[in-house]
Amino acid sequence: MDKIIIVKVGGKLINDDIILNKFLKNFSKIKSKKILIHGGGNQVNKMSEKLNLEVKIINGRRITNKQDLEVATMIFAGSINKNIVTKLQSFNCNSIGLSGADANLIESIKRPVDKINYGMVGDIKKINSIFLKNLLDNKLSPVICSITHNKNGQLLNTNADTIASEIAISLSKDYLVDLIYCHEKNGVLLDPDDDNSVIAELNEKQFHNYLKLNIISNGMIPKLQNSFNALNKGVNSVKIAGSSLDKINMKNTLVTN
Amino acid sequence: MDKIIIVKVGGKLINDDIILNKFLKNFSKIKSKKILIHGGGNQVNKMSEKLNLEVKIINGRRITNKQDLEVATMIFAGSINKNIVTKLQSFNCNSIGLSGADANLIESIKRPVDKINYGMVGDIKKINSIFLKNLLDNKLSPVICSITHNKNGQLLNTNADTIASEIAISLSKDYLVDLIYCHEKNGVLLDPDDDNSVIAELNEKQFHNYLKLNIISNGMIPKLQNSFNALNKGVNSVKIAGSSLDKINMKNTLVTN
Repeated sequence: MDKIIIVKVGGKLINDDIILNKFLKNFSKIKSKKILIHGGGNQVNKMSEKLNLEVKIINGRRITNKQDLEVATMIFAGSINKNIVTKLQSFNCNSIGLSGADANLIESIKRPVDKINYGMVGDIKKINSIFLKNLLDNKLSPVICSITHNKNGQLLNTNADTIASEIAISLSKDYLVDLIYCHEKNGVLLDPDDDNSVIAELNEKQFHNYLKLNIISNGMIPKLQNSFNALNKGVNSVKIAGSSLDKINMKNTLVTN
Repeated sequence: MDKIIIVKVGGKLINDDIILNKFLKNFSKIKSKKILIHGGGNQVNKMSEKLNLEVKIINGRRITNKQDLEVATMIFAGSINKNIVTKLQSFNCNSIGLSGADANLIESIKRPVDKINYGMVGDIKKINSIFLKNLLDNKLSPVICSITHNKNGQLLNTNADTIASEIAISLSKDYLVDLIYCHEKNGVLLDPDDDNSVIAELNEKQFHNYLKLNIISNGMIPKLQNSFNALNKGVNSVKIAGSSLDKINMKNTLVTN
């Protein structure tokens, strides 16, 4: 089976040009087929502030009204996505930036209103993996942002961690898929104040134990839930890692099921 | 030779949701291979105003500093491009939104500083027509915005009319290319105040005569220069048309060489 590496990058890595540059340089050196998935929360917040829009977050998830969706689309699919693509091109990595609307890559449905109305947020329904395979076979590296659509003309904001795991799952029938979540810490930390307290390996049982002990930080919980979901549905390996993507220095948490 | 229709849409058409919707519905009905190219000047101006950025235009061309480029990238490659793509998908037109950086579609060079420093503006150097052909063969309709790049990590703002003619030229070796410039008037007007004064046919000699008589409006001049360039370099036909793309009602100016 052909190997494919799917990397999700988000949070503070995207805000720092020097760190992002180094990350993209290392990403471009990956020799196997590869896909990059990105969010970019902080830049959306900054733009919302400049435009005097209020930012609402409940349970770590952004509440997205129409104006917020417009800003998210501009920042994710516009500035962040295209700046990443042109950077990768300069490192001779032939990349192509995509939202979920492009080639109907990610079809989603607006999250049903239960206790909370998350607004213009989409839960993933279907991945167009045939299109992704076509791009990968043509030696293109897709760079996918966290905007999806409902196939009825409505864009929707979608969690980038979930996009990464769902794309990994959809490709695991045809490829040996390694999924790496890159963020500002070098893995899952035992102690949030100690960057050296990276847990080397974490399985689902341990995760639930740590949850009871309140050891796992709020932002990490959906990332790990996505990781276990990916592993249970055929993804070869999942790592929670830092920013470098540098083989020699890369500390990380290997997630196992 | 297989036929391909390349449509450029810009200006006020993009600002009006109802007109744009009708236009996209008609675009999606075109049965041959097709490409849509868009600008979106007005929305960039509005966002620049909201962000308190100054807009500079010299000889009908925007002077683009780094902040302006950031806004143009957000609006062109982000909100306008993705909103068009999701609308087309809802009309069962399988489209894919692209900037010039994606798959190295349009490589440009920063315009040299002569009398005027246009800033972060790119003149087209090379079109990746092989990639476009691959998309078209896979029944995808590319939707291309007016952001290009220099292959060294720098995005650049590029005139959408010129992108349309250069893409038309690059594909004319392999396809019978019909290029249509859609804008808010039904063609080239003899009298700018009379929407019914559409010139039915206009060749290069007549154009130069009209230029001397000051009959051609400033905004129309580069559009027509691009049209003649396209015709002289192998494009099958060029029309300057209105917003409808509706065969029965479509008045237009047929440009001939």
